[in-house]
Order: sequence, then structure tokens, then C-alpha cells
Amino acid sequence: MHVNTMTWPHGAKCAVLISFDFDAETLWLSRDPRNIRNLSILSFGRYGSSVGVPKILELMRQEEIKSTFFVPGWTAEHHPDRMEAIVKEGHEIAHHGYLHKWPNPDDVAGMTEEIDRGFEWLHKTVGVTPLGYRSPAGESNEPLLKLLISRGIVYDSSFKDDIVPYRQVMPDGSSGLVELPENPTLDDCAYGLSSTTTPRPLFGKEHVLGIWQEEFKQTYEWGGLFILVLHPQVTGRPMRMAILRDFIKFTRNFSGVWYATGKEIYQAFLAYERTHLRKAAAE
Amino acid sequence: MHVNTMTWPHGAKCAVLISFDFDAETLWLSRDPRNIRNLSILSFGRYGSSVGVPKILELMRQEEIKSTFFVPGWTAEHHPDRMEAIVKEGHEIAHHGYLHKWPNPDDVAGMTEEIDRGFEWLHKTVGVTPLGYRSPAGESNEPLLKLLISRGIVYDSSFKDDIVPYRQVMPDGSSGLVELPENPTLDDCAYGLSSTTTPRPLFGKEHVLGIWQEEFKQTYEWGGLFILVLHPQVTGRPMRMAILRDFIKFTRNFSGVWYATGKEIYQAFLAYERTHLRKAAAE
Amino acid sequence: MHVNTMTWPHGAKCAVLISFDFDAETLWLSRDPRNIRNLSILSFGRYGSSVGVPKILELMRQEEIKSTFFVPGWTAEHHPDRMEAIVKEGHEIAHHGYLHKWPNPDDVAGMTEEIDRGFEWLHKTVGVTPLGYRSPAGESNEPLLKLLISRGIVYDSSFKDDIVPYRQVMPDGSSGLVELPENPTLDDCAYGLSSTTTPRPLFGKEHVLGIWQEEFKQTYEWGGLFILVLHPQVTGRPMRMAILRDFIKFTRNFSGVWYATGKEIYQAFLAYERTHLRKAAAE
Amino acid sequence: MHVNTMTWPHGAKCAVLISFDFDAETLWLSRDPRNIRNLSILSFGRYGSSVGVPKILELMRQEEIKSTFFVPGWTAEHHPDRMEAIVKEGHEIAHHGYLHKWPNPDDVAGMTEEIDRGFEWLHKTVGVTPLGYRSPAGESNEPLLKLLISRGIVYDSSFKDDIVPYRQVMPDGSSGLVELPENPTLDDCAYGLSSTTTPRPLFGKEHVLGIWQEEFKQTYEWGGLFILVLHPQVTGRPMRMAILRDFIKFTRNFSGVWYATGKEIYQAFLAYERTHLRKAAAE
Repeated sequence: MHVNTMTWPHGAKCAVLISFDFDAETLWLSRDPRNIRNLSILSFGRYGSSVGVPKILELMRQEEIKSTFFVPGWTAEHHPDRMEAIVKEGHEIAHHGYLHKWPNPDDVAGMTEEIDRGFEWLHKTVGVTPLGYRSPAGESNEPLLKLLISRGIVYDSSFKDDIVPYRQVMPDGSSGLVELPENPTLDDCAYGLSSTTTPRPLFGKEHVLGIWQEEFKQTYEWGGLFILVLHPQVTGRPMRMAILRDFIKFTRNFSGVWYATGKEIYQAFLAYERTHLRKAAAE
Repeated sequence: MHVNTMTWPHGAKCAVLISFDFDAETLWLSRDPRNIRNLSILSFGRYGSSVGVPKILELMRQEEIKSTFFVPGWTAEHHPDRMEAIVKEGHEIAHHGYLHKWPNPDDVAGMTEEIDRGFEWLHKTVGVTPLGYRSPAGESNEPLLKLLISRGIVYDSSFKDDIVPYRQVMPDGSSGLVELPENPTLDDCAYGLSSTTTPRPLFGKEHVLGIWQEEFKQTYEWGGLFILVLHPQVTGRPMRMAILRDFIKFTRNFSGVWYATGKEIYQAFLAYERTHLRKAAAE
Repeated sequence: MHVNTMTWPHGAKCAVLISFDFDAETLWLSRDPRNIRNLSILSFGRYGSSVGVPKILELMRQEEIKSTFFVPGWTAEHHPDRMEAIVKEGHEIAHHGYLHKWPNPDDVAGMTEEIDRGFEWLHKTVGVTPLGYRSPAGESNEPLLKLLISRGIVYDSSFKDDIVPYRQVMPDGSSGLVELPENPTLDDCAYGLSSTTTPRPLFGKEHVLGIWQEEFKQTYEWGGLFILVLHPQVTGRPMRMAILRDFIKFTRNFSGVWYATGKEIYQAFLAYERTHLRKAAAE
Repeated sequence: MHVNTMTWPHGAKCAVLISFDFDAETLWLSRDPRNIRNLSILSFGRYGSSVGVPKILELMRQEEIKSTFFVPGWTAEHHPDRMEAIVKEGHEIAHHGYLHKWPNPDDVAGMTEEIDRGFEWLHKTVGVTPLGYRSPAGESNEPLLKLLISRGIVYDSSFKDDIVPYRQVMPDGSSGLVELPENPTLDDCAYGLSSTTTPRPLFGKEHVLGIWQEEFKQTYEWGGLFILVLHPQVTGRPMRMAILRDFIKFTRNFSGVWYATGKEIYQAFLAYERTHLRKAAAE
């Protein structure tokens, strides 16, 4: 019975990636394009750029942790000063589509436009050519994966099927992207994003920390990869900034926790693959 | 990287606006006009006038806090005695549409009728010409903002994009309304409003206070504006009156908390703008 | 500013009605008639008769509390032995439609059939002519109220607009039913009923008791009417029977709590009306 | 007033069946066949086979508890190594359809195909002819029950109408399957499964253990059957494995708890039926 495994650098017991999906207004525009006229709904998303990103950058600086920001091209285009601030602080910028459109395998042209315009604006605003990609709404399909490979993306973080990184295998048996899989429990939207059309209940510090700390303790025991998927428009709210700060503090009590960016985890996987998995990856 | 800031009057550290959306039956009529015949669903809303408002006025008197009631014209028309009681206690009355209809940018005539009939009934019942406006369901659009300005509204409280008041900038670059932005976590409906058609889960004191107290602590640290968006038909229920009372008590432990009405916060912003932001506002 | 008031018998401080909506399979048949063939969904409801009612009768006997069971005619027709057991224990039987159909004001013939067949089966099975009525799903309308009056119903428990009983006023100004208003927080379905089509979250003892105890403490302070709306298919589950038992135990710590049936509360209101409200009711 | 009863083997006070619905990708394919192209949504389900099953087998071995895995034929077909591992550990394999399609009483041909292909793949992969069946999504109907009987299934675990096993009676009065009824509160999906299309809230250890422990305490008191309905893609997540481990530990504090497979409980019922219920079953 095969199960994927991983050995972390520096003798670390587990890896933590605190990632941010800086969707801003695109989270709402992709749900319904008519929201372009609904200024108040857009203002939900704009909180991410007006307050969320500055507060997050401040906390990450204090905590001395580098993270990865997955940014739709539209967000870069409309909030270039936030992009510059993120890059200046030394965080990684990764690809998150252009308008946060959900990938549709029947519309390859549309997917291609999303990917190419995403690259275009990350480059135009901060001169970045991203190595990593996370799919809007976490959806993915084979044509999209092929497209990402053809454009130079080397790692993905959209799947939910493991607790360690692994190399995707394409349907034709060829080698695909390196996957940094997510745990759906670690997405702040599940606890802090509610709107008129999606009236999800809201949960506070005790509830969220209760879940994240337990997931962390076990993932640590298992030697896995722990990816927080946070959104500046959600985690940037006063209480949720405190939750993130307290959660980081909690993980400081564990020895051998490797805080890393997506790119660093990708590189660690490459090294592991080279020494342990060469044959499997070559199949 | 520009971020909005604010200095509060009297050396206060943060401002608290305990606002009430006195929707009464309109909350249900705006969701589905056929509810006019569904007396039991309407009775949900009527609780706000029969019990909610009297209980709230009693508590606010005991706490010696003045608040702002955002009232649809229909509510004023059908519950004039409640309007008189609110005004007699010295609270501010602000605009909240006529029938709580969600603003539709493609129906400017309909929006205009909502606004004008709202003004009409606030004036007819208690002689008030409101200065502030909150959009039903928090939705807003450019034609609506222009309409509000043309009718003499000077501040709005419908957006979610900051934690301090700010001056809206219209698409043509001209100066717009003063915005008192909300935090969606501070709306009592998220915890206490459930119905057959929207079966949201219900949460009690520990859950709600847990969230509101944490949001307050951080907003206080940040020097922000803390707006509770309460509904007499929700917060007027026995348990939720106790939650509000306990929350106010909690905030009394902090020094430099300025409890204010929407109008007072608007005026404080004007003063701040005059001294600190004149140039920015003029751009 | 008029608010309804009430004086309870025996100098009691508040009244508690522990009511049961014994819907059984009708809860699911009324949502979708095709469920008649979906035996597993029906089994949800049947739990109410197979286990719920026997367990509830046992607890109420131990607690020496008489309650009111609102029973659809279909339930009586299909579970006559449960009806006999309820009546034998001295509980009140009240009207709850025939097939738990939601009253539709455009279908007076349909509503009439529901009411008349409801009366028929309560009489056929246990010889009861009910005095009280609760609407399925809590919906109500003017034609229904007229119909209920014409059939001899004297009290209703479907509205949510007060915390004390009151006399309904019909649109033509005439005197209507006595209303025993509900508080939506006190319905067990809000915490314990989830299904594939309505995937509500489930809550346990601490959550439910937290809410019910706080609502009780405040309702007691206010001298109000506290109506639990319980369903044998929900509260009859092991954990929820313990919640009900613990809640009753909690209320025993308060002096002056009057546990009563719907009929007894109706009679108490009549006495209060006769002495305090005669003029108002006659208007 | 008849109520079902049960006497457990070995003088046990109650029975516990820790069952797993090993749906894997079929949970998502049955909701929407187009998900076959949505690799990321499928990856949700694949977690059940990649990580969930190995982790669960490890825990059950440590706890020395045998359980029943309800497996759709499609899952067996695509994850034969996981099937072999389950069987090797001595757990029971039961029937759970082929593609997890919801039984439709108007499509007997479709239901028949689901059942027959399910049998086919359980046999092809691990040589098992299952005795028990659980319906996908817990739905059931008369044609399906007849079909199951004709194919040799002897027990079912899809209904929610009792807390002890019982013999189903078919509409024509003949004797049906033995039913091991579920309690909907004991399904891990209610607390740990959320997706973009079904944004259920997520709950952690304290919440879930709070409910399961209370349900267990009362079910134990009542001498009932306690069936956990777990999914490797949900309970296989780090935190939820700890919840299951802690829950099992909690039940170890009670004497007379019989941990059994579905088949063992079925056999215990047969013995009980033979001695106590022969006449009733023969009716």
C-alpha cells in the first residue's frame, strides 16, 4: 500500500506555509460580473487592499516570516502600491488568474486569457514572473494543468488529496507540476466570510484556533505540510489578525517547524525527489 | 503605501456607534412582496416594534448612550408611536429607504421613489430630515450615491472597506459622502436571524460576545470605528438584550471609548478633514 | 407607547409551555410529496413515533409536567397508539393541520380541507376536539384565521411578535384568536434537524442549553411566556432528551415558574383580559 | 404502546459500530458527473484513499477494533490496493452502490445496475460477496429493498427510525431485511465536509466530541446501537483522526460496550429474534 512521504530540510519535523490569496474585488466580480456596479459588495473585497495587506505585512515583519501571496492580475493592476509593498517585504508573488474566474475546461481560450493576463500584470506591476499557481476557488482540470506547464509554472497549490507535496502525474503518464496540497479546514473563508448571497455563519477566535491548533498538532505528528489559505479581506479584520498572531505564537512552542514560502517548499521537494523519488518520478 | 487614518475628539482612542436598523415588517416585505399576506412571517418583523424598540430604548437610557436608528419610511408610517419614542429619547433618526428595497442601479426611478418616500415619512411622523443613510442589505451604486448627495444626505454607512471614516471619491473625481464603514461581523443578523427560507444557525451569548469583544479589543488597539448594526427584531429578543448590555459593560473597562451617534462621528470627521486632510479631499 | 403586558396566575413570575409538534412523517411529506416513496427520509420522521414519543412521555411523567402536543391529522391516523398514550398521560392535543401543508392564502379550499381533516382524525383516534392550533412551518394568513375561528379554535401559537399572550385583532377590527407567541430561538429544529436537502449544522448540549438558559433568564425577568417548540423526531434523540431534562432542571432553580399547557395559558389570558383588558379587546 | 427492544451478546450494555463509507471520488461524481473533469474537486475524495484509509487502518489496528467499510464498486475498481489492505486487516466489506448514485424508485434498471456492478467489483477486487448494504445518501425505497433481498443482502444500515436493530416489514407484510438504524448526528460529514457548492460550517474537536459523547452516554443508558458513519476523506484528516481516537478512548471508560461489525450485529439480532421475537417476525 503506497503512501506519499517527505523529508523536510534542516531536519524539520513539518513545514508551514502561511499563504494569502489577495483577491480583493475579484472575489466578488468572479461570482457575478454585475457586482462591478454594486459598490458596496466590491467594498468587501477592497478592504483587503485598503487595510488587510498593510496590517498583514506589519504582522509578518514582526514575526519574521516570509509568505506567498497568490494574486489575480486584476488585483495587481488596480492596487500596484500594495504589490510593491508586498515585494519590498520579500514575500513571494504567485499566480492566481486574472479576474479570479473559475477555470472551465470547455473554454480553453478563456482559461488561456486568464493565465496570460495574470502573468502580464504581475510582470507589469512588480516585474515578477511567478513560479507557483493556485486556482481560483481551487478548481482545476487537465487542459489547465497543461497550459500552466507550457507557461513555465512549476508548482501548484489547489488540490486536497495529500498532506505532503508530491509530483502530479498527467493522464498520459508524463510528469506534471509539483503539488503543495491544501487542507480545506485551513481556509479563513470557512469561518469569516459571509454575505447576503452566501449567509455562512461567522466563528470567532476560540472556534478557529481550536480547529487550526488541533490540525497543526496532528500534521506536525505526521510530518506533513501545513498551508494556511488566508485572504486579506477576511484575515485583515481586527479579530482575525489577532487569531493569526496567536496561531503563529502557538506553533512557536513546537521545535522543528519550518516556515517557508511556496517556492522554498517546491525546492525542498525537488531535492527530496532527486534523492528519494527519482525512479518513481521518471515513470 | 497610503492608509486612511483618523483622530477622535476628546483624545478618545476609538469610537463606538451602536446603530439600529428598525426594519420591522419591511425586512420581510422586501425579500418577498407576497409576505404582505403571510401574517406570521410579518410577525417576525413586528416584534421589533412591539417589544424590541421599547426594550432597546430602556437599555440605552440606562446606559446613557445616544444612538442612530436607520428607519425605512414604511416603518415610520406604520409605527409612528415608536418613532416618537425614539426621538423623545434623543436618538438620531437616519434614512434606510422606504420599503427596504435593495437598490437596483438599472431602476433609478425606483431608487428615487424609495429615497423620496423615505424622506417623506421620516418628516411626516417625527419632522426629521435625516443627514445619514444606510442602504437596505448594504448594497450601493453610483446613481444611488449621486441621488443621496442631491437630496442632502451627508454621510453613509453601507460600505465595508475600512476601519476609520473616510470621504468617498466619485468616479469623476469629485468629493462624495463621508463614509462610516461597517464590519460585517458586527451585525446581529449573522447570529440571531433564522427563518424557514434562510435557515441560518443561531448562536448564543458566549459565541457573540466572544466575537464582538475580540473585534472590539483589536479595533480599539487600531484606533478604529466600531459600529454595531443591530435590529430591534433580533437584538430585542430577551437573550440578545442581555448580550448587548454585557457587551456595553465590557467596553466600559476601556478608557477613551467615545460612544457617539452617526451624526457626531460625521462631524468629528469633518473637523479632522479640515485640519488634516484638506488637500486630499480637494483632489 | 403601548406594550402588551400579562399577569400570571398564582402569583407566578413567568409561564413555561413545553410543546411538541408531533409531525412524524408529515414533516417530510409536506416538504415534498414524492417522499412518500423515499422510505429512508420518512424514517427520519417515524423516529418521532417509534422512539421519540415514548421517551418524551416517560420524561414528562417523571417531571410531572403536562404539555401540549400539536398533531397533524395524518400522524394521528397512522400512529393511533401514540395518540392514546399521549392522551392517557393527561397531555393536551391541539391542531396542527392534516398533512402539515403550509397554508396558502390563495387556496382556501385546500386550507379548509387541511383543517377539517385535522379535526376529523384527532376526533376519530382519541375523541378530541382541539381548542388550540399551531400552523405548520409557522405560516399564517387572514383567511386561515377566519377559518379557525369558524371551526371553534380559540387560541393560536404561530406568531413571533410578542413575549406575552395577546388577543389578535382582525383587519375589520373585530376580535380574533388569543395568541401564544413563540420565540424562534426555542425551536429544537434550529439545532438538531439536518438532512441532505437542508444541511443545517448540528449543535450539542452546551450550545443549546447556553441559548435556552439565557433566553429563559431574561424572559423570566420580563415576566413573559416561554414556549419550547420541540419535535419528537428531534428532541427524542438520546442527547436531546438529556438537554430537555437538564433544561427543566435548570428552570426548577427559579421560583414562581408556572408550567402550563396551551389551554391553561389561554384560560389565564381570558381571566387577565376580563379584569385588565376588557375595554381594549372590545375596540 | 409497542417499542422495539434488544438484548446484546455477552451481557453487553450497548453496541458500537464504527463504520466507514469509503466513497472516495464517487461522493463528488454522484453529485455532478461533470466533476470527472474537475480534478481538484475529485482530489477531495481521493484524499480518502491516499491518506484516509491508511491512517484509519493504523488506528483501528492500535485500538483492536474491527469495523465495516461500505464501499461503492467504483472505489474498489479504482483503489484495489486499499481494498486489499482493508480486507487484510480483517474488516468487513459491505455494499454501497457502484457510483454512489442516489436510488431513484422510478429507475429500477438504473438501481439494478448500481447494485449488480457494486457486487461485481467487490468480488473482482477482494473476492467479497457482501451481506450488508448502506444506501448512498441514505435514501431507500421499496423496489430497492426487494432488489437487495433478491441479491442476497441480509442487513441494511440506511434508516433513521430506531435506536436498536429491527426486522423490516415489507408492504405486503412479508419479512424484510434486518435494519441497523443510524443516528444522523453521528455522521462526520455534518461537521467536517464543506465545499464551494455546499458551504457547510466546519466544527472542531470540542464541538464534535461534545455531541458524540453525549449521544453515547444516553444511547448507552438506553441500551441502544451506536453507529458512527465516518468517511475516510473526512475523518482521515489530521484533526479528525484525533477526534476518533479520543472518542474511542472515551467509550473505554464504560463497561459492557460491545464493539462489533455490521455482520456481527446482524447475527446478534438473529439470535435475539430467534429467542424473543419469533412470533412477531413471522407475522
